[in-house]
Amino acid sequence: MFIPKGFKFCGINSGIRVKGKDLGIIFSETPSYAWGTFTRNRAKAAPVIYDEKIIKNGKLQAIIVNSGIANAGTGDRGLKDVYREVECAEEVFGISSDLIAVSSTGKIGPYLPIGKIENGIKQCRGILSKDGYKEFAHAIMTTDTIEKIVSKKITIEGEDVHLLGIAKGSGMINPDMATMLSFVVTDVNISLPMLKLALVSSVEKSFNLITVDGDTSTNDTVLIMANGFSKNEKINREDVKFEIFSNALLDVLKELSYMIAKDGEGATKLIKIRVKGTKSFYDAKVIGKTIANSLLVKTALYGADPNWGRVLAAVGYSGIDFDPNKIDIFMGKKMLENGVPISFSRSEIREYLGKKEIEIIVDLKLGQGEAVVLTTDLTHEYININTQYS
Amino acid sequence: MFIPKGFKFCGINSGIRVKGKDLGIIFSETPSYAWGTFTRNRAKAAPVIYDEKIIKNGKLQAIIVNSGIANAGTGDRGLKDVYREVECAEEVFGISSDLIAVSSTGKIGPYLPIGKIENGIKQCRGILSKDGYKEFAHAIMTTDTIEKIVSKKITIEGEDVHLLGIAKGSGMINPDMATMLSFVVTDVNISLPMLKLALVSSVEKSFNLITVDGDTSTNDTVLIMANGFSKNEKINREDVKFEIFSNALLDVLKELSYMIAKDGEGATKLIKIRVKGTKSFYDAKVIGKTIANSLLVKTALYGADPNWGRVLAAVGYSGIDFDPNKIDIFMGKKMLENGVPISFSRSEIREYLGKKEIEIIVDLKLGQGEAVVLTTDLTHEYININTQYS
Repeated sequence: MFIPKGFKFCGINSGIRVKGKDLGIIFSETPSYAWGTFTRNRAKAAPVIYDEKIIKNGKLQAIIVNSGIANAGTGDRGLKDVYREVECAEEVFGISSDLIAVSSTGKIGPYLPIGKIENGIKQCRGILSKDGYKEFAHAIMTTDTIEKIVSKKITIEGEDVHLLGIAKGSGMINPDMATMLSFVVTDVNISLPMLKLALVSSVEKSFNLITVDGDTSTNDTVLIMANGFSKNEKINREDVKFEIFSNALLDVLKELSYMIAKDGEGATKLIKIRVKGTKSFYDAKVIGKTIANSLLVKTALYGADPNWGRVLAAVGYSGIDFDPNKIDIFMGKKMLENGVPISFSRSEIREYLGKKEIEIIVDLKLGQGEAVVLTTDLTHEYININTQYS
Repeated sequence: MFIPKGFKFCGINSGIRVKGKDLGIIFSETPSYAWGTFTRNRAKAAPVIYDEKIIKNGKLQAIIVNSGIANAGTGDRGLKDVYREVECAEEVFGISSDLIAVSSTGKIGPYLPIGKIENGIKQCRGILSKDGYKEFAHAIMTTDTIEKIVSKKITIEGEDVHLLGIAKGSGMINPDMATMLSFVVTDVNISLPMLKLALVSSVEKSFNLITVDGDTSTNDTVLIMANGFSKNEKINREDVKFEIFSNALLDVLKELSYMIAKDGEGATKLIKIRVKGTKSFYDAKVIGKTIANSLLVKTALYGADPNWGRVLAAVGYSGIDFDPNKIDIFMGKKMLENGVPISFSRSEIREYLGKKEIEIIVDLKLGQGEAVVLTTDLTHEYININTQYS
């Protein structure tokens, strides 16, 4: 792991959940440039409402995250609880409240047990460490089955720069702006406008292209902190240095997206839906997401059933114009060419569709647009997980 | 059953499917005024492309429907097959090809076995009868578990008028214009413009408010035929007579919608989602459909889990503006009031949610708009049905 200089982490059980870690903190030695992208769900959780406001300052020093309770659907009291949480952290760490962001994930509806969280924050103070990132990653998990950590070292004009990304996903995953929760810290030396640009463009091409169940969460948040501890010459315009950094950031976010999709609730396989030949990236994204969210496609793939007709139907109701006499569909092999079915060996395709990772390609042959949407199959286990959650 | 005068029906096995009826015909003694609404899916099936063209004449005398194969994703050859089917019927019944509509439902991809269908049409000629509607209803079923027939008798200024509606549904159900397939015949005496108006407005408030899986089919079709055999004074404007007829038509389509939703693939319960207090009917419809298509809501209700947070999240990502501090949500009892959770007896709500028919109410308190969307829960059996269909 490549841990950016100047950051500390921890994760503990504060008693929100009966067992397992449920409270995590990321702390920077100095105020860092910071930016965030948030859910477009109009029923925003209280911490999202709060973070959207304070992130406008472009600076953060601490991020406090709890799992177990989402603090969404909690009205005014939910917001008051956020303020109490922030005030407590302000006191414990002796930093301005403007520099503290909070995130929550878990059940919608209940109020935060704020006393437990306050005690938890105090407890965290003594155990923050450079190596605590793994505990932090565990503290933010809900139905995730594995922690999601990606790190990267790049070199900018001879100077080492580190990026560390941590995410959680699993259910209610159809990010529109961001995934459920994801945090990236880096020691890169960069201006705030360039940090914003790198984050926003990378989120659009990573988290915003995954969907597990089509449900956009109330809490989706991506936060990035850049403390400038690396000795690289400051990035303050779209030059080669910016390109190196933003490509690395995109890689980190893509890897986290991949891990989130792969760990989708009840999934037996990861499905890449590559839509190409569209008039724009946007068209490809919309079609890809429509296919990815089709229950009929997801169940067919669970059964390794080469039912390209359901893919075609989903393209048809995506709302994007296309020429039914030009479209090609591949599922392991080309199954539809210029809108006409091609005969195939059923057993061969079934073998392909039985793999842990499969790719479906849809080619509209209308332009240069392309997007790869990641999703999972819809399984009995998904239903088991989601029938008795609350 | 109230069978409109002047119509005959039949349903047979023509060999498209190994067993069970697979070919049905509705035949009118004379050319009838007719209109149709069709899927908005851009990957339209060949019979839909054909019907959309000929329905512009506003007249039909025969409708030929097969199940087993959808004749969708079949390109030019699919259209040629439709023409062969129509030419055969033209010859067998001695009527103009302009008066013949065709529909198909079943698997996307394969070509129609046109020889079998031609033989079937010949066979049908001898067995068409007033009482054959039940056989017709069976011939158009796919994964439906029960036939869907609704009839109604109304009186317009002392004269009896009859309506008979037959539908099929079950999977790939999220009609946008129409359900999978639905046919209505009536002996009402009405002008074509008034027939169009009655159909289009009734479809919007019935079929277009049901969704099983969010997948809009390539074949959705509603066709209506009115032969004028009733002695009612002709309906040719929006007067009381029109109102009586169009209310009856709406009732028939609503009942068919209800039957389709109830028979949704693998469903254990029917879910009514009543969205009210919106600024418009459109807003209510969009929110209702978003909730109805949420996998998380559907699985929670399968498990009788009072997870109102998932309902709130779906309202939030529906794209319709609302005030999170005004919204009420009911699931048997009021669970959220002005955006604040109300404590409830878990066992009591679970008992309510365990019923065969349940209602969820969302009240935005912003206006007079209201819509009731019908859907079903998402179950293990849905996945069983859809993993091995093709």
